[in-house]
Amino acid sequence: MGDFKLTTVEEFEAATARLLETGAKVGADSWQLRVKNQTPHCKFGEQGVCCRICSMGPCRITPKAPRGICGCDVHGIVGRNYLKFTAGGAATHSDHGREICHTLHCTAPDGNYKVKDPEKLIRIAKEWGIETEGKDIYDLAHEVAVEGLMEYGKPFGHQRFLKRAPQHTQELWEREEIAPRAIDREVASSLHMTHMGCSSKPEALIRQSLRTGLCDGWGGSMMGTEFSDVLFGTPKPIDTEANLGVMVAENVNIVVHGHDPSLSEMICEYADDPEMIAYAKSVGAKGITISGVCCTSNEVAMRRGIPMAGNFLQQENVVLTGACEAIVVDVQCIFPALGPLSKCFHTKFVTTSKIAQMPDSEFMHFTAETAGENAKAIVKMAIDNFKNRKPELVYIPDMKQKATVGYSVEAIKKTLDTVTNSYVDETGTTKPLVECVKSGVLRGAVAMVGCNNPKIRPDVAHIELMKKLIANDIIIIASGCSAQAAAKAGLMNKDAKDLCGAGLKRVCELANIPPVLHMGSCVDISRMMILAADIAKDSGWNISQVPVVGCAPEWMSEKAVSIGNYVVATGIDTFLGVDPYVCGSTEVDNLLKHGIKDWVEASYTVEKDIDKLVDAMIDRIEEKRTALGI
Amino acid sequence: MGDFKLTTVEEFEAATARLLETGAKVGADSWQLRVKNQTPHCKFGEQGVCCRICSMGPCRITPKAPRGICGCDVHGIVGRNYLKFTAGGAATHSDHGREICHTLHCTAPDGNYKVKDPEKLIRIAKEWGIETEGKDIYDLAHEVAVEGLMEYGKPFGHQRFLKRAPQHTQELWEREEIAPRAIDREVASSLHMTHMGCSSKPEALIRQSLRTGLCDGWGGSMMGTEFSDVLFGTPKPIDTEANLGVMVAENVNIVVHGHDPSLSEMICEYADDPEMIAYAKSVGAKGITISGVCCTSNEVAMRRGIPMAGNFLQQENVVLTGACEAIVVDVQCIFPALGPLSKCFHTKFVTTSKIAQMPDSEFMHFTAETAGENAKAIVKMAIDNFKNRKPELVYIPDMKQKATVGYSVEAIKKTLDTVTNSYVDETGTTKPLVECVKSGVLRGAVAMVGCNNPKIRPDVAHIELMKKLIANDIIIIASGCSAQAAAKAGLMNKDAKDLCGAGLKRVCELANIPPVLHMGSCVDISRMMILAADIAKDSGWNISQVPVVGCAPEWMSEKAVSIGNYVVATGIDTFLGVDPYVCGSTEVDNLLKHGIKDWVEASYTVEKDIDKLVDAMIDRIEEKRTALGI
Repeated sequence: MGDFKLTTVEEFEAATARLLETGAKVGADSWQLRVKNQTPHCKFGEQGVCCRICSMGPCRITPKAPRGICGCDVHGIVGRNYLKFTAGGAATHSDHGREICHTLHCTAPDGNYKVKDPEKLIRIAKEWGIETEGKDIYDLAHEVAVEGLMEYGKPFGHQRFLKRAPQHTQELWEREEIAPRAIDREVASSLHMTHMGCSSKPEALIRQSLRTGLCDGWGGSMMGTEFSDVLFGTPKPIDTEANLGVMVAENVNIVVHGHDPSLSEMICEYADDPEMIAYAKSVGAKGITISGVCCTSNEVAMRRGIPMAGNFLQQENVVLTGACEAIVVDVQCIFPALGPLSKCFHTKFVTTSKIAQMPDSEFMHFTAETAGENAKAIVKMAIDNFKNRKPELVYIPDMKQKATVGYSVEAIKKTLDTVTNSYVDETGTTKPLVECVKSGVLRGAVAMVGCNNPKIRPDVAHIELMKKLIANDIIIIASGCSAQAAAKAGLMNKDAKDLCGAGLKRVCELANIPPVLHMGSCVDISRMMILAADIAKDSGWNISQVPVVGCAPEWMSEKAVSIGNYVVATGIDTFLGVDPYVCGSTEVDNLLKHGIKDWVEASYTVEKDIDKLVDAMIDRIEEKRTALGI
Repeated sequence: MGDFKLTTVEEFEAATARLLETGAKVGADSWQLRVKNQTPHCKFGEQGVCCRICSMGPCRITPKAPRGICGCDVHGIVGRNYLKFTAGGAATHSDHGREICHTLHCTAPDGNYKVKDPEKLIRIAKEWGIETEGKDIYDLAHEVAVEGLMEYGKPFGHQRFLKRAPQHTQELWEREEIAPRAIDREVASSLHMTHMGCSSKPEALIRQSLRTGLCDGWGGSMMGTEFSDVLFGTPKPIDTEANLGVMVAENVNIVVHGHDPSLSEMICEYADDPEMIAYAKSVGAKGITISGVCCTSNEVAMRRGIPMAGNFLQQENVVLTGACEAIVVDVQCIFPALGPLSKCFHTKFVTTSKIAQMPDSEFMHFTAETAGENAKAIVKMAIDNFKNRKPELVYIPDMKQKATVGYSVEAIKKTLDTVTNSYVDETGTTKPLVECVKSGVLRGAVAMVGCNNPKIRPDVAHIELMKKLIANDIIIIASGCSAQAAAKAGLMNKDAKDLCGAGLKRVCELANIPPVLHMGSCVDISRMMILAADIAKDSGWNISQVPVVGCAPEWMSEKAVSIGNYVVATGIDTFLGVDPYVCGSTEVDNLLKHGIKDWVEASYTVEKDIDKLVDAMIDRIEEKRTALGI
């Protein structure tokens, strides 16, 4: 194993502390300071018992005031808040997917966007019953794009991709009346249900929460992922690096941040342009370095090997290096703090989407139609800004890890093919993985997802959980900021195999993979759903029987709750490290932790003690093994 | 004028006090008690400065903590809350409209639902460019219904009904980028914009609030209204009565409550069925009385003359009479309190929609396909419940007023035709009304809308404002709970002409109308938009020049904010008596009260002092007259 060792969270923190010193010099605010100002949080809000859905209130449930003015009890209030939270997440993910459909609709052989994976496009078209024979690939792309857009608003029928689930799961969704209809309709209906004087019955609200989650995971997010692959290529294993040390002091540093790859792909394209590189050199830089933050980073890392500067709670750090010429953002999870923070440095904070407009930013409207010129202008602006750096403020922590990323379902199957005897075995399946699980070489898998949240010491939960899980021969599939935590620590370095139990280590060696597989961004949790569906079909088990669980130990966003809902509704037990503002209602809490198991064969566990959380997951996986008799 | 006199709010209150005594006997809770428990309200919530859109918080803005953990400032937080509030309202109204489209899609010559106004259907079909010639009316209904449903989810283009607006207004919407696309898309995009780390710029958030309002008023609500007319008939002037005294102690009393006429129309139909009336007699009742609460009441009053038992804050009173066999509800503005309250009496609280499921109710799922049998079962259940009345608890306040209701735009124009010289003048226009305004016989008009809210002494604002306005020769068009307040007071009695200034009195006499015209339910505020558009076209003025303003002095729901947004975005200054949780941000507050005037030629006034509110409206109307030189 040579000299491989993980980077510790203590090392992360030391680097951050050094950067915050720079921040203090220039009078910069930081999330660490704001957390102090905002603590303690409002207990009513934390418990979910505060209601602001009409202007008779706000109302708050207390022993003295057990009902709101309309008469709604605590369970109705908590349940409505939970459904509204879910709807926010599902709408957000799915609107990202819609933008990707629109980008697909703008593809042209000589346009800004092209079809990079025609094979996948044809596969989806056939799946959807669209004639493909003899059709120009761009005509097909446009036709599929319109069909995709119709998934948001079709007046009748359910989501097309539901048919990808095992028959048993589909029947369950039908039986429980949670098979989602048009995506936007589920979102709008959720807001209708949670309007003053509509639903206050927890069962009804939680059922709609699951349905709305499903329209995200098996609808909007899945289209986001699938059509991103069609547009930008389906990820394959690729080497990259992670942590702030990927920024290069001598270069023009452009950081891409957000979620929608339509922007970042174009920025990467133009940053590679010899004309731009020459221009960067002309201003005294050695070149141009693009690095990423948050899910945009995951997108371009998976497809281009673009290094990952950091995850959600490191977004301010990239500016604090003093070496960031531009932080270019699209949508979601972007700290408005970047506005004022960038003003303390020379950094240009460039917002590009009408969906995410922020004060103290330079708004350069980015559209599919004008993507090329927009991207070029942004790259040029960053280069022009190089001269404004204040050298005395420049400090890039010398800290990064190698990572192999890019494990789409297609890539996982291709990797599994390498350990398959192609003369006797079927290729292109998950069967070798199922065999490993059956034999006990692997005990199971955990899907690690989600954000950072200052309520949890950042990255600790992600990293410590993963370390214990892989030591217990449980393989990890990861996405979002969880994946980036793993990469920063070194857990996506193939050398991390030495931290695994004997079984998983052997699998890593045979398949030449790291023990934590990077499956992409947060919309890409839809990849995990497809993988789970395929494993169920290949094993003959129901999804809920497969020894796999989901975990979001440091989640923070509405999207995460939408994700949680579709993961459990797909039959996968889900473990959270942060409570989704429901502890104020025993009924809602009970439904989520127990009751919904009767509907969808899976439920939530919320456990803030990380040690207990990981043990609970291992126990659950072993229970599932026992039940299967393996 | 004979012995006509208005019923005073003091009389309303005395009746309520008597009913609350009954409530006290049986241990019933009431909104009056709950308001006491919930007061004072959370100041953070009231100011809109509390943020719960991610689980890092909740965050609250204070001088010590000027930004949330993500760095969002108070303006972003207030603006996001406002947009989320709007989206809730637009989704709710529009989802009601969607249900109506679905009902239209279920029409059949021998079905539960029929086309009652084929002429209107053909008119809309032609407007939408749908071929009507030689087409069976039901085939046409289904085709129009599908097109209507597509307005919710079409991938491209704007709302079809926008073309009803004057050219100037349409250009304004285009210029300001607030012409709404598919209805559900605007809702979903709003949730995306307000997700953690998306928009925090007040201008962007308020612009989307206007656009989302417009997709309601000129989209979902307008379809709700128009297709309800097609299904159930376009309202014409009809006499009815209002206030609790419409309930009849000797009869089986069924109260319909909610918003969607698909349910209440069927209940009315079956309550009129000789078989049911005979059955009612067989259990000892003299007959069956249907009365209404809230907007459902407006719907059936406008089309059938069904009496109005009361408005929003009287919904508990109907149960407290002890004479309510069943309160049958569909969606929106239904107190969850009705569940426990009904248990204190013999009353059956019947919920019927999956959108509004409540504890302590009997859920009888009502669908367009099974509407007839559902309605029959509900009526029968109410009759069966007559025997369970506790006579000692029965008290119906002897208080009601006559009202003439049913002033759709079509009905208003027909009424205006009666004062037109059909030999020389064009008929079917608003021109006689415009002439009255030009000449000064009428000074202008106020659209009075919205709910009750315990923050305002119930009905006082509605009634006092109207009294002063009509005395100043300002005609009122009213809808929703505002219309019911007027009807209860007697302001929709034609005798109320004597309370008007000389000009309005003459108009009332000539046209044989009351001074307050009932235009319907809250979705029917779309009728007011059409009227404003027609007046603008007939007068040659822009809508914003017409001496008309909107007013919601006692509003409480998300829908009301959505309405406010489309009314101002249509160019009509809007006056509120309750702050929409925005006073915590000077920027948002300023935009709504002033800034948006540059975009849409109208803005909000918020004034809690009712005397000042009415004076401000009169001043605004006079300003507009002066500007027009009339």
